[in-house]
Amino acid sequence: MASRRYGFGRVDEATHPDSMRATLAEFVSTFIFVFAGQGSGLALDKIYIDAALSAGELLALALAHAFALFAAVSASMHVSGGHVNPAVTFGALIGGRISVVRAIYYWIAQLLGAIVAALILRLVTNNMRPNSFHVSPGVGAGHGLLLEIIMTFGLMYTVYATAIDPKRGTSGALAPLAIGLIVGANILVGGPFDGACMNPALAFGPSLVGWRWHYHWIYWVGPFIGAALAALIYEYGVIQTEPPQNHQPLAPEDY
Amino acid sequence: MASRRYGFGRVDEATHPDSMRATLAEFVSTFIFVFAGQGSGLALDKIYIDAALSAGELLALALAHAFALFAAVSASMHVSGGHVNPAVTFGALIGGRISVVRAIYYWIAQLLGAIVAALILRLVTNNMRPNSFHVSPGVGAGHGLLLEIIMTFGLMYTVYATAIDPKRGTSGALAPLAIGLIVGANILVGGPFDGACMNPALAFGPSLVGWRWHYHWIYWVGPFIGAALAALIYEYGVIQTEPPQNHQPLAPEDY
Amino acid sequence: MASRRYGFGRVDEATHPDSMRATLAEFVSTFIFVFAGQGSGLALDKIYIDAALSAGELLALALAHAFALFAAVSASMHVSGGHVNPAVTFGALIGGRISVVRAIYYWIAQLLGAIVAALILRLVTNNMRPNSFHVSPGVGAGHGLLLEIIMTFGLMYTVYATAIDPKRGTSGALAPLAIGLIVGANILVGGPFDGACMNPALAFGPSLVGWRWHYHWIYWVGPFIGAALAALIYEYGVIQTEPPQNHQPLAPEDY
Amino acid sequence: MASRRYGFGRVDEATHPDSMRATLAEFVSTFIFVFAGQGSGLALDKIYIDAALSAGELLALALAHAFALFAAVSASMHVSGGHVNPAVTFGALIGGRISVVRAIYYWIAQLLGAIVAALILRLVTNNMRPNSFHVSPGVGAGHGLLLEIIMTFGLMYTVYATAIDPKRGTSGALAPLAIGLIVGANILVGGPFDGACMNPALAFGPSLVGWRWHYHWIYWVGPFIGAALAALIYEYGVIQTEPPQNHQPLAPEDY
Repeated sequence: MASRRYGFGRVDEATHPDSMRATLAEFVSTFIFVFAGQGSGLALDKIYIDAALSAGELLALALAHAFALFAAVSASMHVSGGHVNPAVTFGALIGGRISVVRAIYYWIAQLLGAIVAALILRLVTNNMRPNSFHVSPGVGAGHGLLLEIIMTFGLMYTVYATAIDPKRGTSGALAPLAIGLIVGANILVGGPFDGACMNPALAFGPSLVGWRWHYHWIYWVGPFIGAALAALIYEYGVIQTEPPQNHQPLAPEDY
Repeated sequence: MASRRYGFGRVDEATHPDSMRATLAEFVSTFIFVFAGQGSGLALDKIYIDAALSAGELLALALAHAFALFAAVSASMHVSGGHVNPAVTFGALIGGRISVVRAIYYWIAQLLGAIVAALILRLVTNNMRPNSFHVSPGVGAGHGLLLEIIMTFGLMYTVYATAIDPKRGTSGALAPLAIGLIVGANILVGGPFDGACMNPALAFGPSLVGWRWHYHWIYWVGPFIGAALAALIYEYGVIQTEPPQNHQPLAPEDY
Repeated sequence: MASRRYGFGRVDEATHPDSMRATLAEFVSTFIFVFAGQGSGLALDKIYIDAALSAGELLALALAHAFALFAAVSASMHVSGGHVNPAVTFGALIGGRISVVRAIYYWIAQLLGAIVAALILRLVTNNMRPNSFHVSPGVGAGHGLLLEIIMTFGLMYTVYATAIDPKRGTSGALAPLAIGLIVGANILVGGPFDGACMNPALAFGPSLVGWRWHYHWIYWVGPFIGAALAALIYEYGVIQTEPPQNHQPLAPEDY
Repeated sequence: MASRRYGFGRVDEATHPDSMRATLAEFVSTFIFVFAGQGSGLALDKIYIDAALSAGELLALALAHAFALFAAVSASMHVSGGHVNPAVTFGALIGGRISVVRAIYYWIAQLLGAIVAALILRLVTNNMRPNSFHVSPGVGAGHGLLLEIIMTFGLMYTVYATAIDPKRGTSGALAPLAIGLIVGANILVGGPFDGACMNPALAFGPSLVGWRWHYHWIYWVGPFIGAALAALIYEYGVIQTEPPQNHQPLAPEDY
């Protein structure tokens, strides 16, 4: 029943043990991801006094985010669907793949996980102030917003195709890795322009603990728009245009 | 029926919903791949004024292409076969694994995806001119052409063995990753010599948007020859030499 | 019977052939991992006279540990459960997933594997003295301890969710990779602060062969606490809160 | 029948179509691997005039070998067993998992693949002389030999556990990746000491085309000894000590 789509009325879901487990899984997985993502930036601050980004530093940031997101999604895929990102939860909601009640639970858990990660990082680094996402000199807020939309579109499209599409077949086995590595690839693109966030929780936890809010809206609005676009295109362009069932559909390997 | 091979006459395929979905999937996946591939080059241009390639930059380019191609192939494998590359589509056509009509659909979708990616990159980077592929000083066009042939041969051979061969078995589960990472490995080889393209769409989109066409033919002719060679060798050297069915073939683990 | 949980009384286990095989597997896999982990540090010492850590060196260390741990866990998962780490064995014991007798066997095998790896490294490098883990200037022992707790928590949570949880489903196929790469991600975070160990065997072998014991306790106490926390949270927060079986649980893809 | 073990008498194997296909697969896959491995070294020679190894260069070499080996093993696993390495073929022979006739076929194919790769690299790079493996200043031939033994032991143990062991279970799905990445990890260890070969074909092709034979014997003797050791330990220590079948063996997840 992987393809069941939700309406707005599952009232008893809030106290269902499965919702609790899934919410806990989102909390811990987002904690693990934000700890590594934000923490890898602090690690480079510890090594280098100067803040200029080199190719080696960009790679370290990209791989830390990619590897940790892969592990965090792997660890929660079978429990909560492995969102680990409020924008992904929003995309799943727009596509009708999750109920509103559950989405709200996930959002709270993801933001709490990010806040706890940022707090603990401040503690273990002997009070280093968290970095926040911002747009680089030479590009404007509009460029950053569009970049977040496009990058999160790529992420959400990958999530939808490999982890939500009921006909995903063997592609599903690699879903957590594809999700982690597309984030790594996009950081190698967007990092020098706007930090390449694609995840409001990753922006929110460090912004709150470091109390830096300039440009913060970009990292909510951009990811939510990009995720919604990807969900709509995949849900209505790919899944819903399937040929009727009595007309034997072509299998993926059938081309 | 993964091993069905096509002739030249499926007239109704053009309006089949499955063709539409597959064509849309190729468009989006090629967009995601070219965005990361071309975008990672622009990201390094943003960091460094000087254009000389270091090992760190070469790694960033290789991983951005590899990771994004892996995600793009994962996201389209079960819908379109995960070509994301006009040369791979050409190889599948030469091997008889896709119809001419569908190949034309895929080519159009792949080129459009690449053009849109290059246009959006120009927009989000505040009008940075796209880079185009070219042959480096010290090697000639002939060297570049041969290099593209060999590298695309390796890519297409991997595609054929892991994603098309009907007897691929468990190797198929890792196909998108093997396809992404062989491109990454080949970029670490060919990058300093000819840019290591292996994909005409990746060359075409940025060349059009940046209007740079010198050497452009190499990145069509080379990949098409390499992919055709690999398809012929795998199709007729490995698949078609199978022992007859009443003679129980040795299973892969049987050596 | 993947979910069977052990009490403290399997007396005949000690001489069971399966225990022997599993213990041998833990010995060899820990040898492979510690050889690469400790060896990659010596390789960088061979290249660079100065001991300051750059982003490139941090990446080399992170990938050497991540890739070798992935291979080592892959090679032992089906024989011993793929612990390759005394803290992971401790977490499995706390969660009731392994017997005390077997845990003691594993610990001995893991420590012996690490010692042999450190000895052979000393030999092949023409007597280079092994590096030991220590806390960096600017952070204290308490910071290092907490960091080890948190990083090992992330590792053990990933192990529990992807390799132990009987309902892990397809997430299990990628378990060894997720385990390897979360260690890689955490090294990119903790490396510049406390070396990012997460594994008492990895600390013990080189400390013994190089005879450096300062701060050594951190790399036992931290990983054991972190692993125990993760095991308790996953075992009692995620697995044990499952809805009763006659109430059809929501499948992971069911959200 | 994955566990069938061979004696020395399958005379008709030499003309069996399956042997032909497997031999072709070994030829092409070794070509792909040696092209990327040797080629990545030439790519760095193209970028840098000075030959000193930096962490970034070491990473580029490690990832090029790892990624290409992963793809090459993936592409041949289901056809030939995915050896791509004369030492791995030797280990499989010692363990009784391949016949002598087939081993000879594989060795010829692997060496030819490596020679063709080295020749084509010389052509496409405008006649750059291939690099050969050698022992670095500060360590002797004996150190290099032992290092090759140990590193190839780790590789062959991973091959045996994930690709040959009939009880490997789900670990088998990731086998090609584990094989590729343990080579990457070992290059990060052994690279600065002896080049970290682990594969006589990888040494032989470039040595022949570049005509440099000093230290060449190390890269045959070391890998063959290491692979034989791993095969014997795994075959007789892990596989053959299995409890008798009427005594239900403990499943891997059963600990």
